[in-house]
Amino acid sequence: MHRYRSHTCGALRASDIGSQARLSGWCHRIRDHGGVLFIDLRDHYGVVQCVVDPDSPVFSLMEQVRSEWVVRVDGKVRARPEGTVNAELPTGEVELYVTDAEVLGAASELPLPVFGDQEYPEEIRLKYRFLDLRREKLHANIMKRGRIITSMRNRMQDQGFFEFQTPILTASSPEGARDFLVPSRIHPGKFYALPQAPQQYKQLIMMSGFDRYFQIAPCFRDEDPRADRLPGEFYQLDLEMSFVEQEDIFAAVEPVITGVFEEFADGKPVTKNWPRIPYAEALRKYGTDKPDLRNPLIMQNVSEHFRGSNFKVFARMLESAGNEVWAIPGPGGGSRSFCDRMNSWAQGEGQPGLGYIMWGAAEGEGEGATGAVGRGPIANNIGPERVEAIRAALGLKEGDAAFFVAGDPQKFYKFAGMARTKVGEDLKLVDHDRYELAWIVDFPFYEWNEDEKKIDFSHNPFSMPQGGLDALNTQDPLTINAFQYDIACNGYEIASGGIRNHRPEAMVKAFELAGYDEATVVERFGGMYRAFQYGAPPHGGMAAGVDRIVMLLCGVNNLREISLFPMNQRAEDLLMGSPAEVGPKQLRELHIRLNLPEA
Amino acid sequence: MHRYRSHTCGALRASDIGSQARLSGWCHRIRDHGGVLFIDLRDHYGVVQCVVDPDSPVFSLMEQVRSEWVVRVDGKVRARPEGTVNAELPTGEVELYVTDAEVLGAASELPLPVFGDQEYPEEIRLKYRFLDLRREKLHANIMKRGRIITSMRNRMQDQGFFEFQTPILTASSPEGARDFLVPSRIHPGKFYALPQAPQQYKQLIMMSGFDRYFQIAPCFRDEDPRADRLPGEFYQLDLEMSFVEQEDIFAAVEPVITGVFEEFADGKPVTKNWPRIPYAEALRKYGTDKPDLRNPLIMQNVSEHFRGSNFKVFARMLESAGNEVWAIPGPGGGSRSFCDRMNSWAQGEGQPGLGYIMWGAAEGEGEGATGAVGRGPIANNIGPERVEAIRAALGLKEGDAAFFVAGDPQKFYKFAGMARTKVGEDLKLVDHDRYELAWIVDFPFYEWNEDEKKIDFSHNPFSMPQGGLDALNTQDPLTINAFQYDIACNGYEIASGGIRNHRPEAMVKAFELAGYDEATVVERFGGMYRAFQYGAPPHGGMAAGVDRIVMLLCGVNNLREISLFPMNQRAEDLLMGSPAEVGPKQLRELHIRLNLPEA
Repeated sequence: MHRYRSHTCGALRASDIGSQARLSGWCHRIRDHGGVLFIDLRDHYGVVQCVVDPDSPVFSLMEQVRSEWVVRVDGKVRARPEGTVNAELPTGEVELYVTDAEVLGAASELPLPVFGDQEYPEEIRLKYRFLDLRREKLHANIMKRGRIITSMRNRMQDQGFFEFQTPILTASSPEGARDFLVPSRIHPGKFYALPQAPQQYKQLIMMSGFDRYFQIAPCFRDEDPRADRLPGEFYQLDLEMSFVEQEDIFAAVEPVITGVFEEFADGKPVTKNWPRIPYAEALRKYGTDKPDLRNPLIMQNVSEHFRGSNFKVFARMLESAGNEVWAIPGPGGGSRSFCDRMNSWAQGEGQPGLGYIMWGAAEGEGEGATGAVGRGPIANNIGPERVEAIRAALGLKEGDAAFFVAGDPQKFYKFAGMARTKVGEDLKLVDHDRYELAWIVDFPFYEWNEDEKKIDFSHNPFSMPQGGLDALNTQDPLTINAFQYDIACNGYEIASGGIRNHRPEAMVKAFELAGYDEATVVERFGGMYRAFQYGAPPHGGMAAGVDRIVMLLCGVNNLREISLFPMNQRAEDLLMGSPAEVGPKQLRELHIRLNLPEA
Repeated sequence: MHRYRSHTCGALRASDIGSQARLSGWCHRIRDHGGVLFIDLRDHYGVVQCVVDPDSPVFSLMEQVRSEWVVRVDGKVRARPEGTVNAELPTGEVELYVTDAEVLGAASELPLPVFGDQEYPEEIRLKYRFLDLRREKLHANIMKRGRIITSMRNRMQDQGFFEFQTPILTASSPEGARDFLVPSRIHPGKFYALPQAPQQYKQLIMMSGFDRYFQIAPCFRDEDPRADRLPGEFYQLDLEMSFVEQEDIFAAVEPVITGVFEEFADGKPVTKNWPRIPYAEALRKYGTDKPDLRNPLIMQNVSEHFRGSNFKVFARMLESAGNEVWAIPGPGGGSRSFCDRMNSWAQGEGQPGLGYIMWGAAEGEGEGATGAVGRGPIANNIGPERVEAIRAALGLKEGDAAFFVAGDPQKFYKFAGMARTKVGEDLKLVDHDRYELAWIVDFPFYEWNEDEKKIDFSHNPFSMPQGGLDALNTQDPLTINAFQYDIACNGYEIASGGIRNHRPEAMVKAFELAGYDEATVVERFGGMYRAFQYGAPPHGGMAAGVDRIVMLLCGVNNLREISLFPMNQRAEDLLMGSPAEVGPKQLRELHIRLNLPEA
């Protein structure tokens, strides 16, 4: 018989009754029922009940065993007594009557129980991560994460993509976040950088004549930690294709992502054919470029109904060019208490308030055309015709409300989007049990940097501007869109990509408009720039956030719940004790010394 | 029609003759045959011949095209004229008659040709890696590398292993090489380390209740570069299993590695059932713990034949305890010129020389018992009986030789191993067209550090000593073997592993014998030490060198030939320009300043 086990703890079934078995695992739960010990023995594969009574030669040994001790037990598989079968457990029909046992690994008193589902502070969980990871939910999430990555990988390969490993010790990448640096021992005063993304390498792979690259790629950004972004490192499903247009990327990626979501959605619906929403439209309708399409609310520009009206605050605003009034419909929200609550919430968000109209029954006022009468200060000021026009435009009815945000859309759209989310959630209009996926397309190539009074790249400087070099030469830069796209899912950006600018002269011009001369481009992106000179194919790709996708599919909001050994919010690994001080010899070898802040 | 291609360059066949096709790719080779242009157009998938003659509307455009320009061409597929079919090319029956074309990416004059197989200096190849990677052999090697990794991954999954990603920003690992360090911005004066291997994490994964871990893991060592070790980073097939003994690891790993080798060996034989060679035996027989078993030569201890003989140099050496004389058989090497050459080679290696016996025909000396008579100074000194005994022991015959190394085997075994390799190679006894795999087992747990006059760990301090805590308490440490094993292939160590010491008291004792007190263990390996206290399962694993395996299967000796973007021998990425200087602001943020060597 094997030294440790004939079966795993999840394997025994009724068909094994009567046979000898050897099991090894952790003592998950120990109950003493009047001198008979019931030990739920757990391993990676499952749990099985073990029984030891005073007739067993190892009774006194097993009496000493405590939670999370690792033991090896031998015994006979027998049927559980009538009435004690556990139908929820795959091994629930049987138990092991233990006649021999051995302690393989004892355990001290636990700082964190494994059995049960109690919340524990992050510090404890991370310091004793090896206990935390034994807990059922986290253990299952980690396994699901692995299966999701395997599924991504297989689906990418089925689409004809090949996996490549790009360097991790490399040069600064142009993603714009802060790099992690690695001092060079061999080259005093010089540093490697950990890649923020393999952007340049994957483009170089295309210029090296490979055709369809992908990688489950570790990426590194030295940013201040947030709950939804791991401090330090994260994983991307990174891909790139040659001789393609935007449509080809969509055709390659959409089935992969849809397939992964369907495989792991536990039966929840997943968007089959993804809508394509231009960036500008997304802002107008949802107040964000990562709309949650489970929320059915669509905002509208209702400026025309306020222009010249007696609601002077809005009417006066609309006299300035560029200002608009947007409406957020609130089906079922037509009560004073809900509208007041929204107004207070807006004030809590630093807004002056949130204007609204609520539609009620036409009590004693004669028969209205619709039976719905708008009420509230705005309705009183603009009069019934305009109120009715707004109601009709928004498709609302008695018992509904609408909320209004006014001013410069560039400044208020984010708040409007938050209000849309708040209205949708509070009115329970959002179906949480589904995954809504969409392409967001036509991102602006440049944006205006008000602080520095200059034009900046909006996203990826390596994207192809729509219209190419012509557009760069002739168009107002701020009106140029890029062949750049995101995937939005349930309110999150889960992927981002673009068709790349593979024309060296267009690349130089694009950077010039953002204030970088050719020498700077050569200095910062020398490898890429050089490669563009020697036969660059048209290419494009994208990168999807593996961690975010896993979080969505596991239904959790914190990376801690889907990562093996995450750092805490102060970017510390409490289990391994990193970062840590290093000796003077190591610093000398690396040609650096400390420059500590004054105490 | 698609913007760039209806077919890839490898796709067209005789069945496409008569149809229109659009192709995009690089101009691989351009020939001008009396005013008709033949352009071999290449993409990732293959090469196809395109023809442009003066009747084509794009003749003058295509006349400007040069090597490695990227073009899109449209035209009609037609049969190649009789006698010009190229049977070696999958597209060799057809050609595309080009009627429309577009330059997608022009190329400057090439610093490195893509067509052809000429050697180029490393500096050029790495600076223009995107051109180098387009070359047929390197391109094929990179693709093979990817397929090998995919095969490893699938085979591991088929064996029930799950892939996990362990952190890359972590703490120093105990592998003993130099760490790459990453200064922390948030914690002044503290540093992360890049993992030399995920050793501690994979053991922690076992203690977290997962059962079969694997990872294609990036590892980092700040070592001085060698041709067979990438400066900086390399990849391991890393694995770990719970509730196992050494045999279980062998049973899991052997089919994976054998399978990978068989899949990619291009028909060369691969060892089916791997021999298991104890470390001490490997040294005795092959003079190395990574023997090349394609070399049939087996060394023997022939001390008894020299003890008390008239060959005084050896006889006197053997009077000191511990000294031995080893023989390297040289079948077919029994000529004066070969033996002299071996002797000179040994002197070139810093040895006083290499003693030998050569067996020749018994010319005019009467009938010898074997017809083979030993000659040379040693033979003359020790006399025919001893010579004959040596010949019989080594199984040699007329025309063969034997070479002798004497002294303290601890000091000479490496040289003896080199001599065995040299004899085998020079006598053409080594069958290069096969893969010989073997387990090397029973490595010593400790070794004597002569410089510091103390006991050190030989390999992995986390291995389980054979005999466990008992052995540590009672045995001479230098006689304790570990459950530690390597895989040797064709003279290289391709993997290394062990059963781990999961008993905290044995771990403390093991470190104590190597001069580390418990406090030091807690300080250096706090996470692991803590985990051992809370129910640790027996576990073990190994790590295989992905790069080395790919090199063996690609038949190359330099990592440059199987890595996408390797650094040069000075640990520089000539393509991306790393390492590089960074600005004072970045250094300030990281709380470090430079400490440059005096000029």
